[in-house]
Amino acid sequence: MKIVLDGMGGDNAPISTVKGAVDAIKEYSVDLIVTGDKEILEKEFSKYEFDKSKLEIIHTTEVIENEDKPVEAIRKKKDSSMVVGLRLVKEKKADAFISAGNTGALLSGGVFVVGRIKGVDRPCLCPALPNIKKSMTMIADGGANVDCKPINLVQFAGMANIYAKKVLGLESPRVSIANIGAEAGKGNDLVKKSYEEISNLDLNFLGNIEARDVINGETDIIVCDGFTGNMLLKSAEGVAMSVMKIIKETLLSSTKGKIGAMLIKKDMQEIKSFMDYSEYGGAPLLGVNGGVIKAHGSSDAKAIKNAINQGIKFSKGNVVEDIKNFVSEE
Amino acid sequence: MKIVLDGMGGDNAPISTVKGAVDAIKEYSVDLIVTGDKEILEKEFSKYEFDKSKLEIIHTTEVIENEDKPVEAIRKKKDSSMVVGLRLVKEKKADAFISAGNTGALLSGGVFVVGRIKGVDRPCLCPALPNIKKSMTMIADGGANVDCKPINLVQFAGMANIYAKKVLGLESPRVSIANIGAEAGKGNDLVKKSYEEISNLDLNFLGNIEARDVINGETDIIVCDGFTGNMLLKSAEGVAMSVMKIIKETLLSSTKGKIGAMLIKKDMQEIKSFMDYSEYGGAPLLGVNGGVIKAHGSSDAKAIKNAINQGIKFSKGNVVEDIKNFVSEE
Repeated sequence: MKIVLDGMGGDNAPISTVKGAVDAIKEYSVDLIVTGDKEILEKEFSKYEFDKSKLEIIHTTEVIENEDKPVEAIRKKKDSSMVVGLRLVKEKKADAFISAGNTGALLSGGVFVVGRIKGVDRPCLCPALPNIKKSMTMIADGGANVDCKPINLVQFAGMANIYAKKVLGLESPRVSIANIGAEAGKGNDLVKKSYEEISNLDLNFLGNIEARDVINGETDIIVCDGFTGNMLLKSAEGVAMSVMKIIKETLLSSTKGKIGAMLIKKDMQEIKSFMDYSEYGGAPLLGVNGGVIKAHGSSDAKAIKNAINQGIKFSKGNVVEDIKNFVSEE
Repeated sequence: MKIVLDGMGGDNAPISTVKGAVDAIKEYSVDLIVTGDKEILEKEFSKYEFDKSKLEIIHTTEVIENEDKPVEAIRKKKDSSMVVGLRLVKEKKADAFISAGNTGALLSGGVFVVGRIKGVDRPCLCPALPNIKKSMTMIADGGANVDCKPINLVQFAGMANIYAKKVLGLESPRVSIANIGAEAGKGNDLVKKSYEEISNLDLNFLGNIEARDVINGETDIIVCDGFTGNMLLKSAEGVAMSVMKIIKETLLSSTKGKIGAMLIKKDMQEIKSFMDYSEYGGAPLLGVNGGVIKAHGSSDAKAIKNAINQGIKFSKGNVVEDIKNFVSEE
């Protein structure tokens, strides 16, 4: 088992990536490869005590920045920490690649460098949203494919179901389609055409779910095209943060409110951190020929460590093999 | 100026519709027609003192229920309070129709009974979302058309712009497209194809807006297909209510929190009522040959009165004429 980590990807790299790598080695006794500028990484790693035999640093000379155009960056920056990491997965020298870097580039690289599983029409990115039951709901697709056909939604459902079982440990993940109404027969062309086929899959399909219920914790996987997934994820993030902001401003505008705010400060911080979905490790890119996990751009060491753990479970769970079987049986 | 109100539509009809009608007659000195069961309505109206010369009740024998299938209900329940009201607008016996009844039926009735304005490909429903600047943001389309072509988004933008000027009184409404990124060139096929044409319209176009910024109050009109509009509206509603619920539960689970909660109770109620978009009158159906306003199903008397006022402004502002000119110039 070998996991490769993009040492240079993310807003807090290499501090958070290195610390996350060290913590993962200590906690999971995993063999790690970290790609990036060797000098910078070695200096950062030298701050920690850990089993150095578990670590290999592969020197790379380029970094894909957030501003880089995804496809172009993957094609041109061949010696970047991201492309080199992806190539190791492609060549089966590593089981999974973790990066907190440029999302678009990682999606392109997943497809162009690692490659699609035969039979998978489009891989999907599956981020998770916190819900009011204090667990997570996966969005499949969370933004990789803005235009989808029914076959895509059907495969997203099947692939996310496998991931939720093998990596999240859910026995029978509940799968729903994001729609404008709960009744079957509702929706746009895409979801109407996908509904029956998804209902014929061997999984725990609950039918449609409305956007108002997305965070109610009554489902584990929400299937949708990537445009809709992006709307759901970002709307939830924006509204939750805005409501917290309005509450803060309202409370601080009166004396009574100020005293109240002081008393509830700790509780509110807890809620805020619970709602911050950047806390929850990474989003897998499902349907490519190896483990590719996108950690949130603002990942701290804990999020990196969690994403590495996702990579380990992804590999141990044989997710790629299961997806191969799923698409060949379809 | 004559406005017709569906006396039987909505969860709180006829109590809220009658009270709303009485308040509107008092406040705006408007001539009102109310459709519905005459006996029931007269009994309800007899509770109030007002200028009875301003009111005409038209007796109808049927009611379209929320469970009724929209198209079928419009076709079969010809003597319903909704169909009769719509027919009055069609026949120019009234300037606008207000209903808090079955949304789908009102959309169908708007198109089949009142009829589209020549040149309008698809009418759109424009509900408004409260934003953190404590004003409203219109969603065009909010759910009438789940599958759209670029011409639809372009017309939604133009029609909503006219409404926002004439009814909401905005001098230069800010118009944005809901998208997965702020940069031009982002998005699915539909928004990519609509972008340039919308940018060529004679209006204050801001470009794309991400879902996380939908309620930040930096735009007045958000253009999108009705599937996306429904996601944005219901997600905002669901997340806002869930966050409030989590806060309440968290606070009530500790003594300190309970005291804090007591101190901030009034402030929180204010925030809750501000976020409840049912408080803000109705959503216009733009692109049909007359005023058709959908009031929220749970409308109270104040919401009905506000929706009647929207109908008055809609008519005084010559919105239909302006839309005719807009589509003929396009």
